[in-house]
Amino acid sequence: MNQPTGSDSAALDKRLRPVLEALERFQVMDEIHARQPHRQADVESALLRRQQDAELARRLSALEGADAAQLLEMLPGAARYRVWDTLPTTLAGEALEEVTGQVAEDLVGATGDERLVEVLGALDPEELSALRQYIPAEVFARLEAQMEALARRQLRTSSEYPLGSVGALMGHDFVSLPVAGDVASAVAALRERQPLPEQTDQVFLHDEYQRFAGAVTVTDLLLAEPDTPLRELLREDSFSLQPEESGDRASQAFERYDLISVPVVDRRRYLIGRLTVESVMDHVRERAEDQALASAGLSEDSDLFGPIWRGARERWPWLATNLLTAFVATRFIALFEGSLQQLVSLAVLMPIIASIGGNAGNQTIALFVRGLALEQIKRENSRFLLRKELAISLINGTIWGGLLGGVATVFYRDLALGLVMAVAMTLNLVVAALVGVAFPLLAARLGRDPALGSSVVLTFTTDSMGFLIFLGLATLVLL
Amino acid sequence: MNQPTGSDSAALDKRLRPVLEALERFQVMDEIHARQPHRQADVESALLRRQQDAELARRLSALEGADAAQLLEMLPGAARYRVWDTLPTTLAGEALEEVTGQVAEDLVGATGDERLVEVLGALDPEELSALRQYIPAEVFARLEAQMEALARRQLRTSSEYPLGSVGALMGHDFVSLPVAGDVASAVAALRERQPLPEQTDQVFLHDEYQRFAGAVTVTDLLLAEPDTPLRELLREDSFSLQPEESGDRASQAFERYDLISVPVVDRRRYLIGRLTVESVMDHVRERAEDQALASAGLSEDSDLFGPIWRGARERWPWLATNLLTAFVATRFIALFEGSLQQLVSLAVLMPIIASIGGNAGNQTIALFVRGLALEQIKRENSRFLLRKELAISLINGTIWGGLLGGVATVFYRDLALGLVMAVAMTLNLVVAALVGVAFPLLAARLGRDPALGSSVVLTFTTDSMGFLIFLGLATLVLL
Repeated sequence: MNQPTGSDSAALDKRLRPVLEALERFQVMDEIHARQPHRQADVESALLRRQQDAELARRLSALEGADAAQLLEMLPGAARYRVWDTLPTTLAGEALEEVTGQVAEDLVGATGDERLVEVLGALDPEELSALRQYIPAEVFARLEAQMEALARRQLRTSSEYPLGSVGALMGHDFVSLPVAGDVASAVAALRERQPLPEQTDQVFLHDEYQRFAGAVTVTDLLLAEPDTPLRELLREDSFSLQPEESGDRASQAFERYDLISVPVVDRRRYLIGRLTVESVMDHVRERAEDQALASAGLSEDSDLFGPIWRGARERWPWLATNLLTAFVATRFIALFEGSLQQLVSLAVLMPIIASIGGNAGNQTIALFVRGLALEQIKRENSRFLLRKELAISLINGTIWGGLLGGVATVFYRDLALGLVMAVAMTLNLVVAALVGVAFPLLAARLGRDPALGSSVVLTFTTDSMGFLIFLGLATLVLL
Repeated sequence: MNQPTGSDSAALDKRLRPVLEALERFQVMDEIHARQPHRQADVESALLRRQQDAELARRLSALEGADAAQLLEMLPGAARYRVWDTLPTTLAGEALEEVTGQVAEDLVGATGDERLVEVLGALDPEELSALRQYIPAEVFARLEAQMEALARRQLRTSSEYPLGSVGALMGHDFVSLPVAGDVASAVAALRERQPLPEQTDQVFLHDEYQRFAGAVTVTDLLLAEPDTPLRELLREDSFSLQPEESGDRASQAFERYDLISVPVVDRRRYLIGRLTVESVMDHVRERAEDQALASAGLSEDSDLFGPIWRGARERWPWLATNLLTAFVATRFIALFEGSLQQLVSLAVLMPIIASIGGNAGNQTIALFVRGLALEQIKRENSRFLLRKELAISLINGTIWGGLLGGVATVFYRDLALGLVMAVAMTLNLVVAALVGVAFPLLAARLGRDPALGSSVVLTFTTDSMGFLIFLGLATLVLL
């Protein structure tokens, strides 16, 4: 009798812990050097190494593919290669499919062609297609050559659609039966087809021309009488997707209508794949991570535990961009060197005006990025939003700018300086509201990700304008 | 015969469009004022208003709950109340359960007790529990009083667990059958129970003491012979959750093991609820949004289209925090007023050093927040990460600091000034790496969200230290 193991999710950690401990004991956790298999021989005897590998293999065999992927991602240099080399072929394939881009690239680059063909040979066509960019062309050709005709066709279908589209996310493992049958014939056909694909909540049906004709749920099949015609069980609201649609829109549909699997049909209504809630959840999670990293100028493929030199280089575009914009923004200060020399307190106070504009603008952008992602912002209501943000900036500028001006007045015993600060802060909040509204809307209109680059543009504008407004006003009023 | 409607996800937009157009035609889209039902009477005849309401009701009746929720969220003031008042009771209940916190609060506050009882009466206990904080106590008491005993017990169970825990996310609608039966008896019991709860991929089983005894999948039931004992179909790897576990850990388990529904059992192994992939996906999406908004100092409950005054106030804590930290940071500039007066170019260049530290530190934080969320960062590998980030800051400080110093040397024809810039930038990058590593790790160790407040602390440190290091070095070397 099988008893449920009652495993709870804290067990995730428990499974990785023994492997981490072994790796720490083998003293590979802190070796940062790249893959140098021969160096090891000098340090420790081949026998010891073999014993360690056997222990590691034993501990690794308890993992599932997703566990192994997490482990590979969280190991630096030597430890990562050690685990990778010790992983059984099937587990290695499952793990490779789940790790982020840079880690996949890293592992593929460190693996000989023979093992690579073995590891990748166990993957489904759509999984292989997603890894294609990291696989050397000759290895990919060998894999393609050893595939069956059907799998090769599926591989080509998956490769046809852009990353992130329904066509690239869908799987090819689904069940389709003739719509003309009854429940008994369907059950008989499903028994032959066992095991059914994961997450099969419905069975697709096709007409006599092999075209998609709808779907029946497994529960309906279970509860119906055996002689019920399948046509009677067809759902009126059955949902289908086209391969060109974006994964984002598909995931909205899954969330709204509580879908588990959805048929993917081409323009002529032939069934070409199936999208499951599993792939959609992966997609949602990855998109959220992408956005968080992209807004700091990093790629979603980033490998936290990768080599130092690559980590340094991947930050260059962001550093260069910010150095350039900061340098240009400070040119606005240079315009007022004379004023600064006369009144050095201006130099002390100007960063406040610049930074508060950036902070307020980032709030507006965060709200708009979410509103656009949820498709709440349309032509009809965007005018309202612009007016609202401008009103808020005026209200908050008056209140908090007034307060700041008051503090400056007390600190420097100079009412005019306080007034200049209050007005400059209000004006810079208005600038921030304008940029915070206009940039995301413009980016969305141009079909770009509104989060991408928004903070650079915003900071540049609020810094430049903050310096210009504050020092300009001060020069006019105070000097 | 039912034909699939073949609706694709672009249809989401198509369904909302007619309502938006009607609202624009009725000229309520731009009215920002709060709920003033009597004012309307002055502007337009009661007859016209009634005709409009009838048209609006017709268009609204085509929506599903999730569509209605999206519509309510994206409408400002008057238009939102107009739609809310016109929504049929059931649709209004479904929508209320899905809108974000502030919108729910807004709508509940604008609704009379009678209608509120009607609207909320149609909700499931766990949905009602999630809305509890927005519902006036006397309305909640009336709802509780009119519930059946079972529902009232479920409501109390849901309210027992903190928001975001499995106990608060789970539903109470599930099927549990005696484990002693066979497939035929199970199918008979399920037929009586129709319609089955949404997303029923497995049926839970209990032993003679009513304790959870495992689960059988619907597909296994469908494919097994009618006289197969249910015990034979029990899955060895059957998964269960406890109500105290966090929704985050549960969602990791759903993603890793491709789950659709999971039984929730208490410590004595009584079945108390069911968590579905639907609730988990909502949770994942909401968490991602929370984090994006929280890092800009906003609540996930934020209502983009809410009243202006509330929008202004919700930004105060962030404005106040940033004003205070900016003010304190500039006190470090005030220490060097003498130096600034002697060499005004320092005032021009100092914001570059401060801002580049903040930008580099934000990259480190973004990587660490993701690494912590994916549970990739453990005690064993955190030393490696600290060393890596420090090495990166030294490498990039040398390269880009050197470049910046070179540019400054050329601009100001002053080699010593260029050297001071290069060294100050490198040192501030090291400060940024230290804070960027230490803050998220410390927050996680203390059980807090590592994204929350990280940018404020980082900016404050890199600004203060940037000013101090640059102006201090300059004073020592140049003056």
